[in-house]
Amino acid sequence: MSNIQDLIRELREDNSSKIVLLVADGLGGLPMEKGGKTELETAGTPNLDGLVRDGVCGLSTPVLPGITPGSGPGHLGLFGYDPLEHRIGRGILEALGINFSVGPRDVAIRGNFCTVDGNGLITDRRAGRPSTETCVEVCKVLAQIQVPGVELFVEPVREHRFVLVIRGDGLGDAVNDTDPQAVGVKPLAAKGADAASGRTAAVVNEWLDKASKALAAHAPTNMATLRGFARYPNIATMKDAYGLKAAALAVYPMYRGLARLVGMDILDAGGSLETQVAQMEKQWKSYDFFFLHYKYTDSTGEDGNFAAKVQRIEQFDTIIPRVRALNPDVLIVTGDHSTPSKLKSHSWHPVPTILWSPSCRADPVTEFGESYCLAGGLGQVQAKYLMTLALAHAGRLGKFGA
Amino acid sequence: MSNIQDLIRELREDNSSKIVLLVADGLGGLPMEKGGKTELETAGTPNLDGLVRDGVCGLSTPVLPGITPGSGPGHLGLFGYDPLEHRIGRGILEALGINFSVGPRDVAIRGNFCTVDGNGLITDRRAGRPSTETCVEVCKVLAQIQVPGVELFVEPVREHRFVLVIRGDGLGDAVNDTDPQAVGVKPLAAKGADAASGRTAAVVNEWLDKASKALAAHAPTNMATLRGFARYPNIATMKDAYGLKAAALAVYPMYRGLARLVGMDILDAGGSLETQVAQMEKQWKSYDFFFLHYKYTDSTGEDGNFAAKVQRIEQFDTIIPRVRALNPDVLIVTGDHSTPSKLKSHSWHPVPTILWSPSCRADPVTEFGESYCLAGGLGQVQAKYLMTLALAHAGRLGKFGA
Repeated sequence: MSNIQDLIRELREDNSSKIVLLVADGLGGLPMEKGGKTELETAGTPNLDGLVRDGVCGLSTPVLPGITPGSGPGHLGLFGYDPLEHRIGRGILEALGINFSVGPRDVAIRGNFCTVDGNGLITDRRAGRPSTETCVEVCKVLAQIQVPGVELFVEPVREHRFVLVIRGDGLGDAVNDTDPQAVGVKPLAAKGADAASGRTAAVVNEWLDKASKALAAHAPTNMATLRGFARYPNIATMKDAYGLKAAALAVYPMYRGLARLVGMDILDAGGSLETQVAQMEKQWKSYDFFFLHYKYTDSTGEDGNFAAKVQRIEQFDTIIPRVRALNPDVLIVTGDHSTPSKLKSHSWHPVPTILWSPSCRADPVTEFGESYCLAGGLGQVQAKYLMTLALAHAGRLGKFGA
Repeated sequence: MSNIQDLIRELREDNSSKIVLLVADGLGGLPMEKGGKTELETAGTPNLDGLVRDGVCGLSTPVLPGITPGSGPGHLGLFGYDPLEHRIGRGILEALGINFSVGPRDVAIRGNFCTVDGNGLITDRRAGRPSTETCVEVCKVLAQIQVPGVELFVEPVREHRFVLVIRGDGLGDAVNDTDPQAVGVKPLAAKGADAASGRTAAVVNEWLDKASKALAAHAPTNMATLRGFARYPNIATMKDAYGLKAAALAVYPMYRGLARLVGMDILDAGGSLETQVAQMEKQWKSYDFFFLHYKYTDSTGEDGNFAAKVQRIEQFDTIIPRVRALNPDVLIVTGDHSTPSKLKSHSWHPVPTILWSPSCRADPVTEFGESYCLAGGLGQVQAKYLMTLALAHAGRLGKFGA
């Protein structure tokens, strides 16, 4: 049994319990200096501390010790999917990030505008970093290109970056990047490593040929390179995997996209914690599982702004009473990874985590923080098992064997 | 390496050391109210506390976080077998539970007496819950039935339940339940999902036809349904896997049966802890490994009787000095799962565990209990690795690699 989800499917017992997963993106941190406190330990979090006292805490390892996850694997783990078994390609993530609704027949590809000379040799791999307005305009030109047998979508991202999506049947994604990662050379031709990917490569080469002609008068954005070919991942919905009718409350498109990948309904979350929680309250009776995503604990960490991250954690803390008032059967608070302000980036450090439920075995921890969680009853647990624990505490898993 | 046992086999070094595994069934618990103590934390356990001070403690996860095991997977894990790789079917467990000596050529099946009307439609799926005396009598009728090419055994369980065992060659167990789980319909015919299971289905259909005639005059127990078809699991003995000559001291048939599955000798354990320990003392020189099973910490938990579970734990504590006096090289105290009185059932919560050996690295814990064990040197460990640790401390595992 390599997959915890096969086991869950075998043991599933549906009921009317409700599970809430609150994700403070990049929650885990580091002290700025020796002997200091982390962002979370510095923050005043009376409501999270109360949840720790009533529940069980520990540290979640997003993938494996030492592995720093991106947002994709970080969230898949929290949704109970082994992030090493379910890879989400870069093209798909880029498409999710701009709120493009990718589907099972799609191959998504990251595009870069570049500048080529009269001989077709690349002189600037980023086309002089055009404005996003230019990007939008030139994407409209590319969107006119058609290739028989497939549907094509070209969507701007920003500056020199866009997304190309090919929709069709039997398309593979084992295709090389056409970006040669150098100037003074021509873009590479696309080649497929298998028959299905060969079909994708043929579409792409025809498209690139037509793009070259369509962009001829648009220097410096007079050519494009493609990379990160990715097919839509074959992944069970949370309904299929766990029997949960799940809803996502996320302000940023990327996280809505990740939630949509596992079959969650995407609710109108507005633009703030206030509107997210209000929507959870409004939709409480309609779903078994709510995923609420809070971005700013990550973005402040990436900015290296310790004080701002502390403040964002304190802001996150204020929603806990309203969520508890809804009376969920299981409430989990965690992050998809750590983003220490000190490192200004995602990191591999385990993530402080709380699981609250009437059936949890309380531990002696009284405050929420990285070092306090070391004494917690969850121990150090792989993120992918948090969902199993949630289902167990929700009474949704039967006994394994007699 | 999917199987820890392949590695153990590679590293095995036999010697004359002795390992004792004391299993208090369902040992782990929960406080009855917030801030309270568990059953184990409430119990006065001076001898177990002494063992904790001299040894190392921690928490054992029987299968995976959130997974509640039955007795089968719970014990296989403690015996060092991955319970996800070695499944024990329900028919086999039912046969073990009545002390029927199942073997490698057997398919064991759970049977229910039911009542059918003149058209063969089921009117009562449990035949009006006959007395166990009736069950015994009617099983004698069924035991007369023969089917060419196989040996058949029919053994009463209780009330409407019995066990049918088919002994023969090349019999599969991928056969549907014949119980339609409904009244007003006929029992289903057995069908095999593969050739070997087709042979089993053919035997069973012939047997059911003969049973229908033999029971015609025995209403309300005038028909039978079958479910939980299970072949004897293909599992290495502890002698083959670890080089251990192993003995079991268990009062209840199910646990003797599980021990027999992995090749343990079943010693006469009498009916109490006193007789179990006396037999261990008597047979001390004859075995390398002793498994002692204590049932009442589980049954009191299942009854929801917190006080009785506390008292049973205190009773279990009294045998520790006699076991230590035998001077084992390794002594493990644990449970096969938790059975919190609060939940009145098996649960997924990790199980407090002690490992004592002269070579263990002691930890600062001084008392045996769920929350104390959080600070223990074993950490949170999967049950299947306790056997590896026992072998290591017994000096029975060589170095891996040069």
